[in-house]
Amino acid sequence: MRTLNVALGDRAYPIHIGPGVLDDAGLIRPFLRTARVAIVTNDVVGPLYLARLQRALEADGVRVDVVTLPDGESHKNWQTLNLVFDMLLATRCERSTTLIALGGGVVGDMAGFAAATYQRGMPFIQVPTTLLSQVDSSVGGKTAINHPLGKNMIGAFYQPRVVLADTATLDTLPDRELKAGLAEVIKYGLIRDPALFDWLEAHIERVLAREPEALAFAIERSCANKAEVVAADETEQGERALLNLGHTFGHAIETGMGYGNWLHGEAVAAGTMMAAELSRRLGWLTAAEVARIEALHVRAGLPVLGPPLPVATYLELMANDKKVEEGRLRLVLLRSIGKAVLHAGAAPDLIGASIEARCG
Amino acid sequence: MRTLNVALGDRAYPIHIGPGVLDDAGLIRPFLRTARVAIVTNDVVGPLYLARLQRALEADGVRVDVVTLPDGESHKNWQTLNLVFDMLLATRCERSTTLIALGGGVVGDMAGFAAATYQRGMPFIQVPTTLLSQVDSSVGGKTAINHPLGKNMIGAFYQPRVVLADTATLDTLPDRELKAGLAEVIKYGLIRDPALFDWLEAHIERVLAREPEALAFAIERSCANKAEVVAADETEQGERALLNLGHTFGHAIETGMGYGNWLHGEAVAAGTMMAAELSRRLGWLTAAEVARIEALHVRAGLPVLGPPLPVATYLELMANDKKVEEGRLRLVLLRSIGKAVLHAGAAPDLIGASIEARCG
Ligand SMILES: NC(=O)c1ccc[n+]([C@@H]2O[C@H](COP(=O)([O-])OP(=O)(O)OC[C@H]3O[C@@H](n4cnc5c(N)ncnc54)[C@H](O)[C@@H]3O)[C@@H](O)[C@H]2O)c1
Ligand SMILES: NC(=O)c1ccc[n+]([C@@H]2O[C@H](COP(=O)([O-])OP(=O)(O)OC[C@H]3O[C@@H](n4cnc5c(N)ncnc54)[C@H](O)[C@@H]3O)[C@@H](O)[C@H]2O)c1
Ligand SMILES: [Zn+2]
Ligand SMILES: [Zn+2]
Repeated sequence: MRTLNVALGDRAYPIHIGPGVLDDAGLIRPFLRTARVAIVTNDVVGPLYLARLQRALEADGVRVDVVTLPDGESHKNWQTLNLVFDMLLATRCERSTTLIALGGGVVGDMAGFAAATYQRGMPFIQVPTTLLSQVDSSVGGKTAINHPLGKNMIGAFYQPRVVLADTATLDTLPDRELKAGLAEVIKYGLIRDPALFDWLEAHIERVLAREPEALAFAIERSCANKAEVVAADETEQGERALLNLGHTFGHAIETGMGYGNWLHGEAVAAGTMMAAELSRRLGWLTAAEVARIEALHVRAGLPVLGPPLPVATYLELMANDKKVEEGRLRLVLLRSIGKAVLHAGAAPDLIGASIEARCG
Repeated sequence: MRTLNVALGDRAYPIHIGPGVLDDAGLIRPFLRTARVAIVTNDVVGPLYLARLQRALEADGVRVDVVTLPDGESHKNWQTLNLVFDMLLATRCERSTTLIALGGGVVGDMAGFAAATYQRGMPFIQVPTTLLSQVDSSVGGKTAINHPLGKNMIGAFYQPRVVLADTATLDTLPDRELKAGLAEVIKYGLIRDPALFDWLEAHIERVLAREPEALAFAIERSCANKAEVVAADETEQGERALLNLGHTFGHAIETGMGYGNWLHGEAVAAGTMMAAELSRRLGWLTAAEVARIEALHVRAGLPVLGPPLPVATYLELMANDKKVEEGRLRLVLLRSIGKAVLHAGAAPDLIGASIEARCG
């Protein structure tokens, strides 16, 4: 087991990474305010891992209530969130009860938002079970649900007390989901960790083969990057925005194609190629660097072209993004492999041409 | 105009109290991040005061979008909240747009929760137009919506940038609402301000007659009390809980009778009498003190008995309250007029008997 720390002062928390951490109630117990938890999971992850987590906690004298949500991004909405509130109220969970998310990013984001808002805030723990949620969504305290007019539009910043990333749970993860998670790993390399990018170029096939050591390294390194950024900028005023490389384009893809058709990581991969393309047109990346980035995505089995939506649709959807300030689109772009910048000066024409070149 | 300050460090904010502050965009403009606001109001307050606020802001070059909610506590739910998100997204409000609540506590609580969660937080301003919201709900950052199984069960702590309490708007407030607001003013006297209680005993008829000077005094004094408590304890770990005098009983009344049938302040008044009764039975208040408290409530036109629900129903509903920790009911009780304590040791029988004595 490897342990990292997210340094957020009095809200600092540890991330435990390793096979089997799910069964170790000793990693959770110290963070409970009372001997009571409510677990939020879904109908795919629940049958696989709920019994183990529940058994470990109950053996430790903890009362466990459970709500099982329908699986999928299309359920990341208020109606599904209300199922969590219904359970919390029906079982009379208190403000001191701890909410545990067991599942991928969808479960984590919804459970986190429920924890942030149930009685104005109850303690929260993340047990992420997808690569994406282990390297990204479970760390950093962003929680949200979708609105028909925009993804993650309603949410809160709310930090967990501890994160347990059980790498062995990834054994059951569909290949396509594993690959989607890799998009975020590649992202850390691109925005701030050139050594990670190099390592991925050398070892990405080992990660795809789910070699435990390779997985653990990729996850730990990703969490370390995310933890550093979040500690420096919890509420996304500055550096944290760099984590959104590819995401403004990506969100347009996700919304434009209907939630759930493109996976988040797939959309981010295509979006990252658009950002790389725009960076090249601004004279910041060389064609060779763009080719390296593309090659790594291809080896990871990720899309390097966005869907063939009209460029106007892309721009329209991007204008709705949270990264808009006074109508100007702030995009994360690359100065080199390993160095990202936030840029609000790109001409709409140039943005459109970069999208055009990278969709179809 | 009187101005108070809520001392919350880098989230400190002023409260401006006086007739006509609504028309003074100069009090709002310095707090806007961009020249754009969204106003949330309802179909009772909007027709009365929206045009004035909107005109003042637009004359100052601010773009104003508006959503008008249906009036009433029964609409303080997710469906209505979604109307705010629909408007914010349809008009493409940004994270930097400021949300302004124009109305009573229902509008304030819902708009505040919307502001806390839209894109994980946008700036927020309160323009309260009921006595209750001017002396209580607009100050302190509690926001919430109701759930069918409990009042204010879903919410956030989220502070406004500035509060404008226009005392002249109270001229159109129905008598019953004015009286309900007075319950909270009396509460401040009871929990921590014996001089305010004495002043109310001397002048309550002047407040009921809406004499501007008497109203302004009662509001300023109430806000000062609330601001002090909130500054000392923003998220209700300690002293802030004392503001809930009468509220655990009161919430049971509100829920038990169906939202909106008993006004919040009416329920708090009856609940305060139950708390006073229990305090007497514990030997803390004298019968004479209870009689003084009752007399003031009667002069304010407030109920001093709860509705005739079975005691078991009261206790059941109270057990659902947020003030429960490990199954024990923590109640705010009175040591004397002007001094409240939080007490978790009262026997259920004694609580039941106090309810019994004060309902019917
Ligand atoms: N909060 C943040 O900072 C943040 C960051 C990135 C993404 N996100 C959000 O995360 C979501 C995507 O997360 P995701 O990629 O984990 O998707 P997901 O939660 O939908 O999980 C993907 C699929 O894998 C299943 N699954 C999960 N664990 C499994 C396992 N161990 N074995 C077999 N199947 C398993 C899920 O049930 C689902 O069908 C999006 O909603 C996105 O907005 C949030
Ligand atoms: N956030 C907090 O700290 C806090 C504290 C106390 C109460 N509350 C909440 O506040 C709500 C009660 O607030 P309220 O008593 O203001 O009720 P309210 O908002 O329902 O207002 C009462 C009625 O008066 C109308 N009204 C408002 N201003 C008016 C005016 N100037 N002239 C004429 N009519 C006017 C309203 O439209 C409504 O019909 C409850 O939901 C309660 O939970 C919150
Ligand atoms: Zn992402
Ligand atoms: Zn109240």
